[in-house]
Amino acid sequence: MYRPQIKVLDCTIRDGGLMNDWWFEDQVVRDVWLADCAAGVDYCEIGYRASRRQFSPEEFGPWRFCDEEIVRRITEGVESDTKISIMCDVGRVDEDQFVPASESVISMVRVATYVHDIDKAIQLANFCSDLGYETTINIMAVSNAFERDIDQAVVQVENETRVKALYVVDSFGALYTEQVHYLVDKYRQILGPDKEVGIHCHNNQQLAFANTITGIIHMANFVDATVYGLGRAAGNCPLELALAFLRNPKFDIRPILDLCSRYFVKMQAELEGGYLIPYMITGANNQHPRAAMELLTTDRAGNYRGFWDQVAGPGAVV
Amino acid sequence: MYRPQIKVLDCTIRDGGLMNDWWFEDQVVRDVWLADCAAGVDYCEIGYRASRRQFSPEEFGPWRFCDEEIVRRITEGVESDTKISIMCDVGRVDEDQFVPASESVISMVRVATYVHDIDKAIQLANFCSDLGYETTINIMAVSNAFERDIDQAVVQVENETRVKALYVVDSFGALYTEQVHYLVDKYRQILGPDKEVGIHCHNNQQLAFANTITGIIHMANFVDATVYGLGRAAGNCPLELALAFLRNPKFDIRPILDLCSRYFVKMQAELEGGYLIPYMITGANNQHPRAAMELLTTDRAGNYRGFWDQVAGPGAVV
Repeated sequence: MYRPQIKVLDCTIRDGGLMNDWWFEDQVVRDVWLADCAAGVDYCEIGYRASRRQFSPEEFGPWRFCDEEIVRRITEGVESDTKISIMCDVGRVDEDQFVPASESVISMVRVATYVHDIDKAIQLANFCSDLGYETTINIMAVSNAFERDIDQAVVQVENETRVKALYVVDSFGALYTEQVHYLVDKYRQILGPDKEVGIHCHNNQQLAFANTITGIIHMANFVDATVYGLGRAAGNCPLELALAFLRNPKFDIRPILDLCSRYFVKMQAELEGGYLIPYMITGANNQHPRAAMELLTTDRAGNYRGFWDQVAGPGAVV
Repeated sequence: MYRPQIKVLDCTIRDGGLMNDWWFEDQVVRDVWLADCAAGVDYCEIGYRASRRQFSPEEFGPWRFCDEEIVRRITEGVESDTKISIMCDVGRVDEDQFVPASESVISMVRVATYVHDIDKAIQLANFCSDLGYETTINIMAVSNAFERDIDQAVVQVENETRVKALYVVDSFGALYTEQVHYLVDKYRQILGPDKEVGIHCHNNQQLAFANTITGIIHMANFVDATVYGLGRAAGNCPLELALAFLRNPKFDIRPILDLCSRYFVKMQAELEGGYLIPYMITGANNQHPRAAMELLTTDRAGNYRGFWDQVAGPGAVV
């Protein structure tokens, strides 16, 4: 699927950080950055930027905050077309954490929001656009939103922002391929030609890659993926699969395979990420993986039947 | 996707046996059978039937041979609508291994073949039909066949057999969803109304479930899956995902979740099955997983870059 307009964004550190509170060693983050540069990945999303008034640096590692100086230190000394992005959650970041884009090593700020906070997301995205950053808005958990609210939010993003892309985000790994098709078509039809559709999938039902392909086929041009699929719970679309599929001559899959060899196969197992039955159960029932992640810390972790009954509710069979 | 005509076939023991030479303990096989009965799965495929002149019972466990007496012993004492099937490879089974269906506990014989052996497959399927068995023909490795040969084989199966279903088999886990769509449509258009299309997928690129859904949407009514996806190399479409998707009130997912708890999560890890990078590399390059399975027994198992270069050939980048 060679379409030059497609931009691949590697959010391994950002989404994977949800599994280890962003305690990645500097060397790992630097190697992800170098590999993304060597592989021709378009964006390397290196973490969240979050408020220190709300999140303690004792509890959370540096990639929860993405201060300018650490991002600069980790990424310096490389000539590359790969850009750096960070993500902000609406209401969890302070405006004084941003310098103008001209003084920053960061190119893009992505604003994550639930649909009911779309006005705040637009405000934050416009603030970052005014500072000179590329921006996106990522509407999370669309599988759990009222369609009318989604429709209205997409219209607002079109009319009130200068974002480069608006993302369909399947936070729960609940969407089947037909539903991704439907949503990407909807976004694409409402948005004008200067705004792209993005696609960010989770793998609770082993559909992250398939749903990403569906997004691409339906003209989503911003594509999120992570090395070996590392990300919250069941994780994301594996970057190695996305690059193998895209067949764009600018990509080289091998630096990403090296990251799998060195770090991420092992890390995925240690952090209990990937396709696990508890994550499948929340995904198939369109719920946040929170309960599954909690279950895995208990001695009931292997009682899948019990967890199914808890999540699906009494009397639920399939 | 509730369509009453859909038949789900659990081939955990048969396809999973490719990972342990069919050395499953009797209790495991019995528990799979009991769970399939309790879950409402339509067929339990309990192994291959293979010639003892070609395969040594010292090397291969009993589910490589599926003698009548052991299948009867393991499955007896249960009232159930679930039927038992076995698979035969063309040229690897002896006709004197079969009793008439009226004397057998086995309901269905599935004939696996490469497209160039379709005449032999038709002969074997007709032999089994004459004995009173339900039959299918499963054309393996379609991703590697000439389309003209496939076309001719499907016409022959339509005209020369009484099989219940003809399967699209993605042995290498190489097919993208669009290709499954294309092949299932082709089979469906050529076959008459008394023959179903079947779908059997492998998970090398994490597409087994997505491709199975695509098959179902395009009217494949015989659906293969295995518990926790256990099967050769990256394995198959996970049965728990298929049942959750199908939403047919006759299914109960929970006995299958119990099998995951008791046996198959552990077994998948011990046998090195599931999504591993070497399997992804053969799948993405449309090759048999043999080389990947060999690699995993060596000290080069973690050198993914080297294996990519070996499989994709010199100069291949994506």
